Amino acid sequence: MTSQPLINADRLWSRLMALAEIGATPAGGVNRQALSDGEIAAWRRVIGWAGEAGLTPSTDAAGNLFLTLAGRDRGVPPLLLGSHLDSQPTGGKFDGAAGVMAALEAVVSLAGQDEKPARDVIVVAWMNEEGSRFAPGMMGSEAFTGEHDMDAIRAARDADGVSVGEALDRVHQALPDVPHRPLGFTTSAYLELHIEQGPLLEAAACTIGIVTGIQGKKTFQVVVEGSEGHAGTLAQSERRDALAAFARMASALHAEIGTIDTDIKFTIGRVAVVPYAPSVVPSRVSFSIDLRHPDNAVLDAAGVRIATLCKANASPCAVTVTPLVDAPSNAFDARLRADIGKAAREQGHSAMTMLSAAGHDARHLAKVCPAAMIFIPCRDGASHVEHEWAEPDHVAAGASVLAQVLRELAFAPAIEG
Amino acid sequence: MTSQPLINADRLWSRLMALAEIGATPAGGVNRQALSDGEIAAWRRVIGWAGEAGLTPSTDAAGNLFLTLAGRDRGVPPLLLGSHLDSQPTGGKFDGAAGVMAALEAVVSLAGQDEKPARDVIVVAWMNEEGSRFAPGMMGSEAFTGEHDMDAIRAARDADGVSVGEALDRVHQALPDVPHRPLGFTTSAYLELHIEQGPLLEAAACTIGIVTGIQGKKTFQVVVEGSEGHAGTLAQSERRDALAAFARMASALHAEIGTIDTDIKFTIGRVAVVPYAPSVVPSRVSFSIDLRHPDNAVLDAAGVRIATLCKANASPCAVTVTPLVDAPSNAFDARLRADIGKAAREQGHSAMTMLSAAGHDARHLAKVCPAAMIFIPCRDGASHVEHEWAEPDHVAAGASVLAQVLRELAFAPAIEG
Repeated sequence: MTSQPLINADRLWSRLMALAEIGATPAGGVNRQALSDGEIAAWRRVIGWAGEAGLTPSTDAAGNLFLTLAGRDRGVPPLLLGSHLDSQPTGGKFDGAAGVMAALEAVVSLAGQDEKPARDVIVVAWMNEEGSRFAPGMMGSEAFTGEHDMDAIRAARDADGVSVGEALDRVHQALPDVPHRPLGFTTSAYLELHIEQGPLLEAAACTIGIVTGIQGKKTFQVVVEGSEGHAGTLAQSERRDALAAFARMASALHAEIGTIDTDIKFTIGRVAVVPYAPSVVPSRVSFSIDLRHPDNAVLDAAGVRIATLCKANASPCAVTVTPLVDAPSNAFDARLRADIGKAAREQGHSAMTMLSAAGHDARHLAKVCPAAMIFIPCRDGASHVEHEWAEPDHVAAGASVLAQVLRELAFAPAIEG
Repeated sequence: MTSQPLINADRLWSRLMALAEIGATPAGGVNRQALSDGEIAAWRRVIGWAGEAGLTPSTDAAGNLFLTLAGRDRGVPPLLLGSHLDSQPTGGKFDGAAGVMAALEAVVSLAGQDEKPARDVIVVAWMNEEGSRFAPGMMGSEAFTGEHDMDAIRAARDADGVSVGEALDRVHQALPDVPHRPLGFTTSAYLELHIEQGPLLEAAACTIGIVTGIQGKKTFQVVVEGSEGHAGTLAQSERRDALAAFARMASALHAEIGTIDTDIKFTIGRVAVVPYAPSVVPSRVSFSIDLRHPDNAVLDAAGVRIATLCKANASPCAVTVTPLVDAPSNAFDARLRADIGKAAREQGHSAMTMLSAAGHDARHLAKVCPAAMIFIPCRDGASHVEHEWAEPDHVAAGASVLAQVLRELAFAPAIEG
């Protein structure tokens, strides 16, 4: 099977670097927000490359992009593989983009074969995985799997007040030649390659991570309400200072939740102060909480404790804690995991099983079809940063393993999870 | 002296309300930032009203607006009176505007008299008193008195990256007919009317506050530097979370500095988090500190302690504490305070002496000439809020006292501080 290369590694790398020019930041990273002009430009480029190999583009009401290689039997559920094209505001070249481009390379290489696959094979780029422009993330895959209602998704707004609905319509208007397909369809399997976004593969000098599952995640939006006042005249005892209450909450949360055990991850990444003037006592502070743990029982208990700690430190202000994401930890498909291990072994790549500390769209696909993920190392375990880096050899190895698993599934008469 | 009204109270009130339409907010307040389009519009309106009474406009390199009533002897140092036209983002109709409009009304009424004043009388609107768009505040009066260098002032930038220099040039270009005068000139006295921005006059049912001085103020800009990372993968023990360090600092500062005594005022009004994404560990948090106290020894000790507390709570992040404003408490001119008390008494207004808890441009003028301030009550002591309110009778009483003090100075052959 591996006498012929399964992919063109040089083409993959050069396309991945070309994609990183869209939204490139001065520090070498990428800022390509969901449904932005940058994402439209990325769609155009990816659609162009896919078109050269005979793949046809389509989209759905959730703004997911599909690139289809037609199979012999168009009536059976297709294979899906991909990731996302949006990035963090100071993100890197690989998070999401590596998965979409590896999938495209695997399918383009398959399209170059004489034999047609048994079923359709579709590359997907999910809408708003990151959740940085519109919260929460993974909107596209949640809409696809029916976990989240499109009306609710369309109503979310970015910091400038633009709704997902408005931004989505704008993307679709910018690409009038991309036909629309119904939202959600039966899929025979889902595969996603991603950089690890952690240090384990690098530390073990291992090229391929066979992902067993994704750690659980909860997110919250917390709003502290106090009263505005003049910084020079209002006595401390008369104040309802929302920032002072926030400081107590954040300090207590970091001290207690952040030290539950060595697996816990606790982050306050956004804090917005109103009215935001140096000489006005803040009337309102809103902030985000991101909480993760591989053990659902620990995760649930920490979630309850977060609300308690916020309330205990609010007085004399009021506080509301709104849960956003509530995603328990999950396990990926055993047969697909075995296929990934076999492909890595046959291709001579070192491989290890591992849990994903980060969330991915595959978490949602795993609820509706057999799903699995392939990890490749990233330098220093750094991701969501502008200097995020994956070695060309590792990108090629991951894509080649993905291509082998894809080919075995694509020509199989039936797929069982 | 008081047989004839010294001002037209109805004209003053209607002009004050008309001014409040510029930058009016939906909740009834005012958002008129320094050197903004709103301030340009306010200048135009004020220049128009002044022109009807024969006052001539001029400006200086610091963007202060002057409206001059020519006196008999143009060679002697003029009288200066006024306040500022800029507001907080969610400010009210009276902070600053009441002082400029009371000064204008007093001078316009004076211009209507047969006898010319002995010296020039100039209404002033100082540039950027609030410091909310460009930090720190009181740039115009500090430039006028030579305490702050124009190059440094011009280099300060707002949140959108616009410099004071750019914004200032834009204001001057928008008003090409307003002649320029050299920055800073010898002044024989300075008077400023302002709402109290505190509850003391209202609580004492008193109409006129004779301000003895201004409490001392220090401001700081603090920057916490950590390292960016992925919220789902980076272990807590590996993090240099700038927000976690900020929470510890802010919590400790509020707990210790905010409770020094009942006179201390401690405010963190602005917090900026970078990169500002829910699933990225913050690499940088910058925040403002506003500290006030009437006793300079307490103020100085608290200032030193602030830097110590920031450093003690920074690890594993780095912190830099940059002092911005360092304004000790000051005392106003004894003779002018006596004049204000005498005018209030003769006009039948209840009056009390009091310390100003808030900073004002008069603080800086007091270093270069005899200066004093007149306070009038504001409802519930509330200021820097959209529902800020002063009664029409109180505005009229304050302006009338200001007008009487002005007339006595304006016709005096010499003024001694």
